Amino acid sequence: MKILILGGDGFCGWPTSLNLSNSGHEVLIIDNLSRRNIDNELGVISLTPIQSIQTRINIWNKNKNNHIDFINIDIAQQYSSLLNAINEFQPDAIIHFAEQRAAPYSMKTPQTKRYTVDNNINATHNLLCAIVESKLDIHLVHLGTMGVYGYGTAGMKIPEGYLDVHIKDDENQKMVETQILYPTNPGSIYHMTKSLDQIMFGYYAKNNHLKITDLHQGIVWGTQTTETRLDENLINRFDYDGDYGTVLNRFLVQSALNFPLTVHGTGGQTRAFIHIEDSMKCIELAISNPPKKGQKPIIRNQMTETHKVRELAKLISDKTGTKIDNVENPRNEDAENELFVSNKSFIDLGLKPKTLDNSLLEEVEMISKKYQDRIDINMIPCKSLWK
Amino acid sequence: MKILILGGDGFCGWPTSLNLSNSGHEVLIIDNLSRRNIDNELGVISLTPIQSIQTRINIWNKNKNNHIDFINIDIAQQYSSLLNAINEFQPDAIIHFAEQRAAPYSMKTPQTKRYTVDNNINATHNLLCAIVESKLDIHLVHLGTMGVYGYGTAGMKIPEGYLDVHIKDDENQKMVETQILYPTNPGSIYHMTKSLDQIMFGYYAKNNHLKITDLHQGIVWGTQTTETRLDENLINRFDYDGDYGTVLNRFLVQSALNFPLTVHGTGGQTRAFIHIEDSMKCIELAISNPPKKGQKPIIRNQMTETHKVRELAKLISDKTGTKIDNVENPRNEDAENELFVSNKSFIDLGLKPKTLDNSLLEEVEMISKKYQDRIDINMIPCKSLWK
Repeated sequence: MKILILGGDGFCGWPTSLNLSNSGHEVLIIDNLSRRNIDNELGVISLTPIQSIQTRINIWNKNKNNHIDFINIDIAQQYSSLLNAINEFQPDAIIHFAEQRAAPYSMKTPQTKRYTVDNNINATHNLLCAIVESKLDIHLVHLGTMGVYGYGTAGMKIPEGYLDVHIKDDENQKMVETQILYPTNPGSIYHMTKSLDQIMFGYYAKNNHLKITDLHQGIVWGTQTTETRLDENLINRFDYDGDYGTVLNRFLVQSALNFPLTVHGTGGQTRAFIHIEDSMKCIELAISNPPKKGQKPIIRNQMTETHKVRELAKLISDKTGTKIDNVENPRNEDAENELFVSNKSFIDLGLKPKTLDNSLLEEVEMISKKYQDRIDINMIPCKSLWK
Repeated sequence: MKILILGGDGFCGWPTSLNLSNSGHEVLIIDNLSRRNIDNELGVISLTPIQSIQTRINIWNKNKNNHIDFINIDIAQQYSSLLNAINEFQPDAIIHFAEQRAAPYSMKTPQTKRYTVDNNINATHNLLCAIVESKLDIHLVHLGTMGVYGYGTAGMKIPEGYLDVHIKDDENQKMVETQILYPTNPGSIYHMTKSLDQIMFGYYAKNNHLKITDLHQGIVWGTQTTETRLDENLINRFDYDGDYGTVLNRFLVQSALNFPLTVHGTGGQTRAFIHIEDSMKCIELAISNPPKKGQKPIIRNQMTETHKVRELAKLISDKTGTKIDNVENPRNEDAENELFVSNKSFIDLGLKPKTLDNSLLEEVEMISKKYQDRIDINMIPCKSLWK
């Protein structure tokens, strides 16, 4: 297949590009390198020593017959370049990672709020518009987030995108059953942009019969994949700063330096997780199982387990002996929440999840301890406030 | 009250500005004159001879002690100008009309689709962001559309924004009752942008406790109001072109020239309507009845009656003797639909609706016949295709 990967230089985009290239697909990466530019803006660097996109691709192409190509396009701003690239490459599938993806960054300042909305909405809408204009039969696979659901309804299981509801029909004195898009309840500007994406996907699937899969992904952990391990120059990025670092990465870096693990509030927030190699497998499965033309978007929950933040801290503390420190939560959220999520869709397609419990220590040894000289401990705290 | 009116030069914005000024409020208009520029782009003019914004305001200010001010700002592009204007004027309420509002225009070309999304989403989001940054206690009143609902569920009444649903809780073997935002089903890119607006309103009301009223307006008919009638130089715009003209305006112009009334398909589409003077009253009622801080947005259906398009054609045909012509429907929609809508919210606040049946002939005589020399009949057909 010909696969166009938007945002193919990023944390998920890069290993996905290598994985799909390795599986024999023809891969074209489009990226505007905004993630690297935001590193410059924030004055942080990836813990792992990532190479420039040009070097990464050269190394890959030197060792593989199946070459990856790269074009620098800002898809939110350069519509005609995007359309030309689609028309020339004629992709069978497009994987869309090209959005600003950090909730804390999206809450930092009026400027970052506005950038996140402007960039993410125009990126997605330009893409939808260009697919229609190209008249090609393309399967669009979008990386969404579990965060569009909010924190679920009173202990009930979160389904995969759509919810069965009963509505009282007062005129006819009966209950009507129908299926709706799960009522969204985003917790940050970033998550809100993914809620807006969903509405655009529903519209374009209905009006233009675009084939769309939306993957509601949990927090991705792990750094390396089979392909990024092949050469240190192919290494994937690892973010631990207060904006882009996930809670788990923050803990890993703190434990490497034997600094206390900072838990926000009581640590009672439950989050969904998935290992990066499982995320790669899910994307391959999603590509192989597209919706039919005219069908509403397929939504799959791309996560394999849920944990409370304090359980994660305890897990790492138990394995490494690092202490735990409770600090104030900057987010506007309940101190405690439960999260029950269906991930039947990928399990039925054959996914065999890798669990945090068994594989976490590898991350401590192979990443955070190995590169501990590159850690700037001042970059860890989250400075964005929700209120 | 100090009231900032965004889009105050437009079809609804202008009479609203005059009406609120006349009621004793201090009015500031912000507009980038995009509606006039789109007239230039499409090569059309308002049937009524509207004056420039400067002339209109000069005439008003010459005759009234309560002066209206105007600043030309593109709120989707010029965030700091918008923020400065809010900080200086310190409005108690902001009425937000500043969006591209024609469904056919939004479906015309990839460029107009992209403009509509980029303009409408950034306009609304910049405004929300600026209200938060100003730290002022402002009530935001937004002009939305009945079109966010789609065409309702199987004969059931469309509520005002929120729907009571029952969800089956399989784990606990019971039904859970909850209230959700009505599941949106927009019929065009334009309507889709209003669906996106709703999600942003919900988020900012929840996270930042903004006070927001969203008015889901039907098709506005009528041209003149008490204030715009005071001087011909204050006259309101009347659009009849295939992009911005409503079905009713198209019929009025066709009947003035004794051309057949063009009905799309069977004319079985049911639409919601409201007279422009009732729309003004609704906006005043909405301003006087804001939500509390921390409350979710108040959604009110701003419409007073529903009609099938073929019934409207028959109404005008019966009164004027004009023939009816059925042409192909450019929209991607069912040939026939019913529409039952609750408008209890405004009726309870005292709205006494003006009906189409009684007041339509005034429009034929006072507008379409009076200015028939300005009609370009070639501009009437809708050239935008949905498919």
